[in-house]
Amino acid sequence: MQSGNAVEALFNPRSMAVVGASSNPAKWGHIIPSNILRDGYRGRLYLVNPKGGRIHGLPVHRSLSEIGESVDLAMVTIPAEGVREVLGDCAAAGVKAVIVISGGFSESSPEGRRMEEEMVERAHALGIRIVGPNTMGIYSAPWSLTALMPPVRPRPGHIAFAAQSGNLGTQMLGWGSYRGIGFSRFVCVGNECDLDFADYLEYFARDELTRVILLYVEGFKRPRRILELARKITPRKPIVIYKAGGTEAGRRAAASHSAAMAGSQEVYRGMIRQAGMIQAETTEEMLDFSDALVKLPVPRGRRLAILSWGGGWGVVEADLCERQGLQVVPLPGEVKEELSGILPSYWSKGNPVDLVGIVNLEDHTRCLEILASHPDFDLLISLGTVNAAAAFGMAERPEEVPLEEKEVFAVRRRYVREGSNRFAEKVVELMERHGKPIVTVGMPQRDAETAEVADLPRDRLCVYTNPERAARVAAMLAERGEFLRARG
Amino acid sequence: MQSGNAVEALFNPRSMAVVGASSNPAKWGHIIPSNILRDGYRGRLYLVNPKGGRIHGLPVHRSLSEIGESVDLAMVTIPAEGVREVLGDCAAAGVKAVIVISGGFSESSPEGRRMEEEMVERAHALGIRIVGPNTMGIYSAPWSLTALMPPVRPRPGHIAFAAQSGNLGTQMLGWGSYRGIGFSRFVCVGNECDLDFADYLEYFARDELTRVILLYVEGFKRPRRILELARKITPRKPIVIYKAGGTEAGRRAAASHSAAMAGSQEVYRGMIRQAGMIQAETTEEMLDFSDALVKLPVPRGRRLAILSWGGGWGVVEADLCERQGLQVVPLPGEVKEELSGILPSYWSKGNPVDLVGIVNLEDHTRCLEILASHPDFDLLISLGTVNAAAAFGMAERPEEVPLEEKEVFAVRRRYVREGSNRFAEKVVELMERHGKPIVTVGMPQRDAETAEVADLPRDRLCVYTNPERAARVAAMLAERGEFLRARG
Repeated sequence: MQSGNAVEALFNPRSMAVVGASSNPAKWGHIIPSNILRDGYRGRLYLVNPKGGRIHGLPVHRSLSEIGESVDLAMVTIPAEGVREVLGDCAAAGVKAVIVISGGFSESSPEGRRMEEEMVERAHALGIRIVGPNTMGIYSAPWSLTALMPPVRPRPGHIAFAAQSGNLGTQMLGWGSYRGIGFSRFVCVGNECDLDFADYLEYFARDELTRVILLYVEGFKRPRRILELARKITPRKPIVIYKAGGTEAGRRAAASHSAAMAGSQEVYRGMIRQAGMIQAETTEEMLDFSDALVKLPVPRGRRLAILSWGGGWGVVEADLCERQGLQVVPLPGEVKEELSGILPSYWSKGNPVDLVGIVNLEDHTRCLEILASHPDFDLLISLGTVNAAAAFGMAERPEEVPLEEKEVFAVRRRYVREGSNRFAEKVVELMERHGKPIVTVGMPQRDAETAEVADLPRDRLCVYTNPERAARVAAMLAERGEFLRARG
Repeated sequence: MQSGNAVEALFNPRSMAVVGASSNPAKWGHIIPSNILRDGYRGRLYLVNPKGGRIHGLPVHRSLSEIGESVDLAMVTIPAEGVREVLGDCAAAGVKAVIVISGGFSESSPEGRRMEEEMVERAHALGIRIVGPNTMGIYSAPWSLTALMPPVRPRPGHIAFAAQSGNLGTQMLGWGSYRGIGFSRFVCVGNECDLDFADYLEYFARDELTRVILLYVEGFKRPRRILELARKITPRKPIVIYKAGGTEAGRRAAASHSAAMAGSQEVYRGMIRQAGMIQAETTEEMLDFSDALVKLPVPRGRRLAILSWGGGWGVVEADLCERQGLQVVPLPGEVKEELSGILPSYWSKGNPVDLVGIVNLEDHTRCLEILASHPDFDLLISLGTVNAAAAFGMAERPEEVPLEEKEVFAVRRRYVREGSNRFAEKVVELMERHGKPIVTVGMPQRDAETAEVADLPRDRLCVYTNPERAARVAAMLAERGEFLRARG
């Protein structure tokens, strides 16, 4: 049975119904429609409950057939036992895909497994495909559709994300919003009783809005099919994958969580490599890597220049990058000469380029331009200049500064902040001009990470809060470049 | 020549002078006194400049001798060439330690090295000890003394920190402030022409305010002395160390940054292990480890219970902890029974304990208490409950919530936030009652990390923003416990 139309309807529903809508604020049948309405779903939303009435200001239909219009997508929040029953109504209303939120299926008991199998059988007989069960729902950016259980508000963007965990998946969406990282589509795959990773992957591959695919996986139902698909996709669109359940303790936990057979980590590693997928080693890297692949160009090689405000950070970053297989190459003579025209006589004359005590941020920008323009460097890492005001504690609340110092402090902060922002804009401009990535590091966490730093060009800039993350992202980009060149 | 009195005066100066005070807001001689005044130094501050006048509302003395009172500590911001000259005046005023901010010494040229040697010789002849040169200064909590170049505002606490990098060191102080991590003392060691790591380490060891020692090191001048000292200190006070300059690129960078001989990484690793020091592998771990050692008890073994709101996080954490050598042991029968009284019938019955979809946070707290009270567990990790409101996007600004939803949303957020905070308080209470660490994970970055989450008991609670950091901290604590038991 073809999944294409169903997944198309899932992510682009002109209309959807929530079956099991509730006036009780503690029920998912209440909370999910509230999330959908809050984010302004662009299609038509229908609520269904045999009791009728009004919820969230909308009329409640007693059944799907009462709606009297065709419905593309249904989301079911009623107890497991009742789900099979409503499928007939769904089919009659023209529903192509049903998201089954309810738990209590194969993840919980042999009886649940039987119910799940019967549900799928019935659905297929009716020409319907099922998402879940035991899922937290979906998100689709072009429809402003946040059909999710938790009240996260995803940011629209270009990452499509399929997750075998509802909490982890939706919290990543929320984390992304804080950091200015946007998603095109999201699905919590649940028990995968019918539609599975392979089906979503196929859709993400052809979805024009999606530029990077992200997967959180405990175990694949159809690993061979995934391998076959991923091989075709990765030369065009990167796939970032986090594989959980690699240890004995993790495998046991996965078995009881998603009923997934986590399989051997070595087998998965081999498969990921063969398919050209990019393995995130930490949960943080899931977002770091996906975001960088959306925003930054891919480098032509591994030759790296480091520009650092603060010698210590330069030492740390040089160590990290060398360990990651990047080449911290010597500075060409003409670069040294040009930099000597800007930096004080006692500058390091080496790579990393230490900006020593230079407080004039225009000079930072000039040094960056010299390094970025030189053909001997394939990629750059800049530490300490982006977000400098926060790094030096200057982003603290003005009311904490003693009165007599307020004015001087404000002037100094404005100076640093403005210079730092001009530098960030130059980073973006130089990346576009030279087509090489510039990864930036700005401490501390709060300001560097959050979308609150509204004056930074976040849609084209990646800022990490420590040198480790920057080194890992830079190395990942270099590997991606090599992969693409090898595929011609 | 004994360093004890000098270091004592350095960190506990009843009076200090800034030699080279300036009315020019762009000069360090202006900025440093402004930072000192802003944080309310508890001793007497004198400004010295041959021009006289007033700066920051204080009279400027034309020389140290003009002050007419004894001065414990001097900080010199004048150019390198002039420093040797003022040492005589310093000695006459009773100065015991001089912090030389100025650069242009051994780190920059052979001539600078000669100047540095002459300066030390002269200082020793006068009975004075030198910090730096090429340092960004010091911080001392009991004196509210922030004698630093950048405008960071350290938070008082129990970590003493010596750093061979000014930017890295001071930015860590700033980062700590955002995260609620406090310091007792800080020194940027600079070129270590006289006082060095060993001298500071000796002081930190006997300083009662200091409970954890943190070192950022590119290379030690006296590695044998450090080893000898550290062996004595570590059974009483933990020493966390980040060793930079381990690769060829890093070594080159270190040589030009701090003129340090970074030495073989293997030799350093051996030394760190022998001395019972704790190696931070990332810059983030410098703070994570130090903070945890101040705030959390040390466990009696490696047997770990994981409590997770969200099955995926449990799988990820189980993997990570097993890889870190912790034991994710099976749940004892009586624990399963007790938990079954709280959790729905389909709960996992295993470790990690998945809180499934339980929205009643009081039940989270009851589960935590059951696990923490059982003698079969030496330590706990809790994911997802602390900071839950933020994790689910509920900490967003109320003005972003559509009007019609505001009330319901506010009620829900208050409920989650209050439940989450009560849970956090229980974490602290249980740690005190049972003397075992409970490490918590709360996403996303912004709220989990910052001191803004004022209602959390931050002084006794460690919250990390991803499961990786929690696993590393838990493993580090377990190792510390084993080390202490081995030393008996």
